[in-house]
Amino acid sequence: MDPRVEEHAEVLVGWSARVEEGDNVVLNVGPDSHELAVAVAEKVGERGANLQTSYASSEVGRAYALAHDGDFEEDPDHLLALMENADVVLSIGGGRNASEGSDIPPETQQAQSKARQGIREAYMDTDWVGTVHPTRSLAQQANMSYEEYQAFAYDAILRDWESLADEMANMKDVLDAGSEVRVVKADTDLTMSIENRVAVNSAASVAYDSHNLPSGEVFTAPAATEGEVFFDVPMTIRGERVQDVHLTFEDGEVVDYSAAENESVVGDILDTDAGARRLGELGIGMNRGIDQFTDSILFDEKMGDTIHLALGRAYESNYPEGHEDEANDSAVHVDMITDMSEDSYIEVDGEVVQRDGTFRWEDGFQT
Amino acid sequence: MDPRVEEHAEVLVGWSARVEEGDNVVLNVGPDSHELAVAVAEKVGERGANLQTSYASSEVGRAYALAHDGDFEEDPDHLLALMENADVVLSIGGGRNASEGSDIPPETQQAQSKARQGIREAYMDTDWVGTVHPTRSLAQQANMSYEEYQAFAYDAILRDWESLADEMANMKDVLDAGSEVRVVKADTDLTMSIENRVAVNSAASVAYDSHNLPSGEVFTAPAATEGEVFFDVPMTIRGERVQDVHLTFEDGEVVDYSAAENESVVGDILDTDAGARRLGELGIGMNRGIDQFTDSILFDEKMGDTIHLALGRAYESNYPEGHEDEANDSAVHVDMITDMSEDSYIEVDGEVVQRDGTFRWEDGFQT
Repeated sequence: MDPRVEEHAEVLVGWSARVEEGDNVVLNVGPDSHELAVAVAEKVGERGANLQTSYASSEVGRAYALAHDGDFEEDPDHLLALMENADVVLSIGGGRNASEGSDIPPETQQAQSKARQGIREAYMDTDWVGTVHPTRSLAQQANMSYEEYQAFAYDAILRDWESLADEMANMKDVLDAGSEVRVVKADTDLTMSIENRVAVNSAASVAYDSHNLPSGEVFTAPAATEGEVFFDVPMTIRGERVQDVHLTFEDGEVVDYSAAENESVVGDILDTDAGARRLGELGIGMNRGIDQFTDSILFDEKMGDTIHLALGRAYESNYPEGHEDEANDSAVHVDMITDMSEDSYIEVDGEVVQRDGTFRWEDGFQT
Repeated sequence: MDPRVEEHAEVLVGWSARVEEGDNVVLNVGPDSHELAVAVAEKVGERGANLQTSYASSEVGRAYALAHDGDFEEDPDHLLALMENADVVLSIGGGRNASEGSDIPPETQQAQSKARQGIREAYMDTDWVGTVHPTRSLAQQANMSYEEYQAFAYDAILRDWESLADEMANMKDVLDAGSEVRVVKADTDLTMSIENRVAVNSAASVAYDSHNLPSGEVFTAPAATEGEVFFDVPMTIRGERVQDVHLTFEDGEVVDYSAAENESVVGDILDTDAGARRLGELGIGMNRGIDQFTDSILFDEKMGDTIHLALGRAYESNYPEGHEDEANDSAVHVDMITDMSEDSYIEVDGEVVQRDGTFRWEDGFQT
């Protein structure tokens, strides 16, 4: 077995999910993730935890959903009981075709999703972690050869997470102490309030309220956004290539927008509901193991020396206890990314914290 | 998709498991059974049942078991809850290597099996059906090309089960009305009591107390066996090739045995416990879609014009209600097969019911 697969399993089970003796673990295995599943099973066994393996195939799911009359039973007992009795859920993505669900009618998807709400809530109550096994299908989506993609993915996943968590703690401290963030680069000068917010040090571990592997970002929930921002990283949103989005904010809301490609997708998102015109997230990418865009949000948004902003729903983890209901509410959460490695800076309360891709605590930083 | 895969799925979900709207279905998918799993998911969806898919990989199971310290927790909650809330369990075998578990220490296997007894009982309480998706690994085990093996497997599986069930009902009627069975062929003259027994018409459907697809046998639990029997079909028992077994019975128990190859395997089986020296099953193979031996008991024992006898544990379903505790008890149940297509006959209460592979109700039968 490729030693990187074993290391990936150890990071997932040890660092990310913190699996302990007696834990009830559900392992969701994608059709092409078998090799990583074997390595993960070994790590789960070593720790004396209890293993259930589920098969997460979008082809199986599609066949079921398309054949069903759409009147889905609410939270079937066996599915709910499995999730309610699970302590840890590990999901290893890496299917054969990311577009497999594309011909399921949206109303069927919504009906099924609605009828699985209790199961989803039980899932969110577990120590869940999502990762991907680098597959040929993902390599294709990233426009890379398989070997190149493997190297890319493992660079992102096999970090020294403890030391990255320590470094990201610097950024969290700055944000937790600050009241206002300003982001400046070409066509961008945006200010956001972060008063009374809790930044999350997303260090790819449930111990840090972080559920993705890889992760490597510090994020918070901004408010009262003013100014303009330009997103120079191309993305696929709702199956469409969206490029060079420019947004103008007044009083926390988007008042003007444009895009070089598929502008209407941006318009559709903004028209979803009132919350979709406000920001739900400001994320600062700090995983320098990710050095190129691969059109996969799991990787792209964590790239070192980028920031991303999401239109729509905010995470409750960014609000102090008892204030979770203040989180921006929306049916959407759409991330857009901009490069901060050159001719740019981030200020918190008037002090520069990153300039041209160098943080205040790093060598070569210039105020 | 190969239309035979779709037909297989329909037989499994419709005829075998009788899946109905609202049923909670667990689908166990082997690593190479993906295609059949997709077809089964469609049939489950059509019926409006609820689907959970589990991943049944012997490689994953082996990695987990070998890494574990052997002190397995008894019936982990999440596994037990899933099974206790399931109405139907469909298992699609067809792994990559039938020998994958061969290097798990027997004591580990036994400890794990013992710690999963409640789960196994919950499983047995469901409408469970086991089948196989014809894979390249199974073709190799059968010494056939892949195409040849597919043709073989689908001939066995895609029967007119309703009409085979009707035909097998003739055999069940004869056995239910009879008191004594006699089997005669070269080196074989065996009599067995079947007084107060219920024959099972194993027609590959839970509606017939039959949990294998393919099936196609009528079986009962014999007692007071006298005489000798010769098994001319070679088999793999406990990983060893066993050939030309000859057993001599007195007063229901084996008093002498021999084999042309691996005789010690037979001796080990007989020495397991007291019940291992008695018969637990007499099965009459009636699936003429199976026309050759493939070293797989799922297929071999159902072959038309064969009978099989099992040393060891009897099935409770062969005893009248309230008499299930009379079933022969043993830790083993080892089937051995003999050909009845030529120079042979089966008598029930002195009347011939099959001679040279032709049943009493068939054209060409001679008493």
